Amino acid sequence: MHEPLTRLKLAVGEVVDLQRAAALLEWDEQVYMPPGGAPAHGEMVATIRKTAHEKLTSDDVGRLIDELEPALPSLDPDSDEHRIISVTARDYHKAACVPSAFVAELAQTVSTAQHAWIAARAQSDYSKFSPHLARLIELKQRYIAFFPPREHPYDTLLDEFEPGITTADVKALFAIIRPRQVELIRSIADRPQVDDSFLRVPYAENDLWKFGEEVITTLGFDWTRGRQDRSVHPFATGIGPDDVRITTRIVPNEPFSLFFGTAHETGHALYEQGIAGDYRRSLLGDGASLGIHESQSRLWENLVARSWPFWQHFFPKLQQRFPTQLGTVSAERFYRGINKVQRSLIRVESDEATYNLHIMLRVEMEIAMLAGDVSVNDLPALWNSRMQEYLGLTPDNDARGILQDIHWSIGAIGYFATYTLGNVISAQLWNAFGRANPDRDADIARGEFAPLLTWLRSNVHRFGRKYKPQELVERVTSSRIDPEPYLQYLESKYRRIYEIT
Amino acid sequence: MHEPLTRLKLAVGEVVDLQRAAALLEWDEQVYMPPGGAPAHGEMVATIRKTAHEKLTSDDVGRLIDELEPALPSLDPDSDEHRIISVTARDYHKAACVPSAFVAELAQTVSTAQHAWIAARAQSDYSKFSPHLARLIELKQRYIAFFPPREHPYDTLLDEFEPGITTADVKALFAIIRPRQVELIRSIADRPQVDDSFLRVPYAENDLWKFGEEVITTLGFDWTRGRQDRSVHPFATGIGPDDVRITTRIVPNEPFSLFFGTAHETGHALYEQGIAGDYRRSLLGDGASLGIHESQSRLWENLVARSWPFWQHFFPKLQQRFPTQLGTVSAERFYRGINKVQRSLIRVESDEATYNLHIMLRVEMEIAMLAGDVSVNDLPALWNSRMQEYLGLTPDNDARGILQDIHWSIGAIGYFATYTLGNVISAQLWNAFGRANPDRDADIARGEFAPLLTWLRSNVHRFGRKYKPQELVERVTSSRIDPEPYLQYLESKYRRIYEIT
Repeated sequence: MHEPLTRLKLAVGEVVDLQRAAALLEWDEQVYMPPGGAPAHGEMVATIRKTAHEKLTSDDVGRLIDELEPALPSLDPDSDEHRIISVTARDYHKAACVPSAFVAELAQTVSTAQHAWIAARAQSDYSKFSPHLARLIELKQRYIAFFPPREHPYDTLLDEFEPGITTADVKALFAIIRPRQVELIRSIADRPQVDDSFLRVPYAENDLWKFGEEVITTLGFDWTRGRQDRSVHPFATGIGPDDVRITTRIVPNEPFSLFFGTAHETGHALYEQGIAGDYRRSLLGDGASLGIHESQSRLWENLVARSWPFWQHFFPKLQQRFPTQLGTVSAERFYRGINKVQRSLIRVESDEATYNLHIMLRVEMEIAMLAGDVSVNDLPALWNSRMQEYLGLTPDNDARGILQDIHWSIGAIGYFATYTLGNVISAQLWNAFGRANPDRDADIARGEFAPLLTWLRSNVHRFGRKYKPQELVERVTSSRIDPEPYLQYLESKYRRIYEIT
Repeated sequence: MHEPLTRLKLAVGEVVDLQRAAALLEWDEQVYMPPGGAPAHGEMVATIRKTAHEKLTSDDVGRLIDELEPALPSLDPDSDEHRIISVTARDYHKAACVPSAFVAELAQTVSTAQHAWIAARAQSDYSKFSPHLARLIELKQRYIAFFPPREHPYDTLLDEFEPGITTADVKALFAIIRPRQVELIRSIADRPQVDDSFLRVPYAENDLWKFGEEVITTLGFDWTRGRQDRSVHPFATGIGPDDVRITTRIVPNEPFSLFFGTAHETGHALYEQGIAGDYRRSLLGDGASLGIHESQSRLWENLVARSWPFWQHFFPKLQQRFPTQLGTVSAERFYRGINKVQRSLIRVESDEATYNLHIMLRVEMEIAMLAGDVSVNDLPALWNSRMQEYLGLTPDNDARGILQDIHWSIGAIGYFATYTLGNVISAQLWNAFGRANPDRDADIARGEFAPLLTWLRSNVHRFGRKYKPQELVERVTSSRIDPEPYLQYLESKYRRIYEIT
């Protein structure tokens, strides 16, 4: 039994090496690559992804899986051995449906599309991006056709990012969340506005950056196994658990965007840094899904870093760094300011109360595109009318409308719903941790984050991809994925801030 | 005919993509990787190098070469078509002698050895590095055994870096250079010392960095296709001609080390940026050899950036940036200061008059190691006694002695002689350019570098690996590789500076 498993691990190790190398190249493209390097980088990533795919779907791996799969029923389903075989087999069977040449074509198209998107967004010119989007959708449709038909074509794309979750699940989730959040926003609108004028004055970027570094060091970010840089769009990427890189960006007139972006990406990074070292060179060595990943980033960004206990600890330190801007501001006023609800055009700058509406907007468009119900050329107009309908706003230009997010340009269609899943799951985990540790809020108010990180490490992080998202949530919270805790968290938080009775 | 050549180009394109990706990962390791990432990076590079080797030595490539090679005699030997086939065939046949598993083992060993060297040098503890060196030499001996025996085992290693050059060639070159340089140093020692006290005061790093950027922009460094960062050991790396990265370092008490390091690496970078775009994804798309590469870095560092015409143009600008340090220093005094001859322990800080002695020292040790004449444990003592013999100095510790250079730790044994070849060739090219452009010095004194860069581009850079080093030198200078012009350049320069009659 052991011999073939060892051979499988070695073969898969090379696949993982190549995938990690591609991730590092993609990080480099967004952080340090000189612009002239784009075509060569596109070719490199395409070749690496194609080669990783060739190695994963090789006859050798196929034979080892054929040999190992029959033994699964005799293994403890909770053992690493079982899961390494079953997860590898799942990835193998899925990859085997897709030709390697297609993988290279997609990677190459994505690289070009991404650079076109950067230019299109900079010039707010959708026509510079739309041919690339059309090409990507065509590729996604070809991708879907490699697999057996499902209830909805979008199911196949969702499954890439959120194994086991369907279009119907997402729609059902949205149907519960939408009316409650719309109602919440309406009751907030009736209340006096929160003052956040002190957040709209200039803050020295470098000092904010240093404050962010100080905070995430306290949260537990391990700098010997990670780093932080700047990029156009903030992101986190793990080159394995021992090299996890986050980026953030400077948004003019939104100084704290840098800080909350840092907190968000740190949530992703803490997850990656916490995956069991044993899984490092295996297919278990990544996050369980994007939704679970996002549950970590949203948990640290919102449930932690936008909470009252958090600022009880950190506000005096922040105030000390920025006496001019915050010297006369109370912690309470600061807390209310950073939680101000304001309908906004930009997802990544939007508050917790409106965030999911941004998600629904794009997910619905994706589902419609894949179903063939809307054409690429109609998207900007549709975006603008839906934005008006959901948030009562109309973008002044496409850069602040449909072009605002990178995802489509990197071929990540089917990804967006995972943001809402992340929100939902973050509250479920938060409550579970609160039940396990009744001192949760007091610990945070004292700047003690080790209990939270330790709990997340042993209940979520270390398992990597061992469990599918639904299975993991049930193990940790004894409940299926459920929007109720998140809605209650939102309602209770904002009723207090806006004194809604 | 065309069909197989197109297929060969596509197959080789993937090899090049992987090699470039490995180069980028290696750049990252030295510039931005968090320390914890080292093992995973080692695995990634090993897998990528092994995979590139597998692809280059695949049956497909072998069949295409078998098909294309017989057509070579009917092709114009000066055509790109001929050279793409012949250079690819040469690389293929050479690679086919080496098993892919060996390539991975070497890459993995190198990655570990490099990190051991960094630690060993930091602590000046040779014993932390020597087991890795022993392992590397063992691997090099296994590597040599994959090939037919040559006159000297070292020939096989030299050929990797300097195709066509033998151990006998190198020894003959050294035999001519050594007595002339030793004599030159002796006559300099009899003269009054040059004053360089103004170079030993503090200079703001950031301002020196900016001055370096300004200079290399004027020289022709293309920032849209390149960048500069810091690292422990300065180097240049081309991820293809459109993404060429240089690094430099800050040396305490040697402020201008940063500047001349930048000028040196820029010479490498201008070469890479100048390789014909058509060769980008082929095996012609690199420098002809390390010696030719070094001829470019030494030409820009020494013949240009340590010349009197250069500082006629740039000294006023430098003076403006550093009025405190240089306000009362004349251009002439500055020029003499930066060309001060001083026997030194450190190769990369040594002047032109002594540089080649540092090279000979290490090359002779490499030849002895490969011949089995000296053991790894005896190296530090041997280094120190030879350093005393050649330069009259004894290192205070191994960090400033045998451990000073990175090369052995990255498996680059057989590399060092290329530094001296580079010096020699740089003067030959310099004279050839001077014959073609009698205004050479006047142009430089006016800050006009385009004529030089254009001449190098069309006579050297664009050809990439199309010609072997000896062939290239003969095409451009109508002479074989010859130390005489370099020795005359040195003698004439230093006789003037030291007023030797």
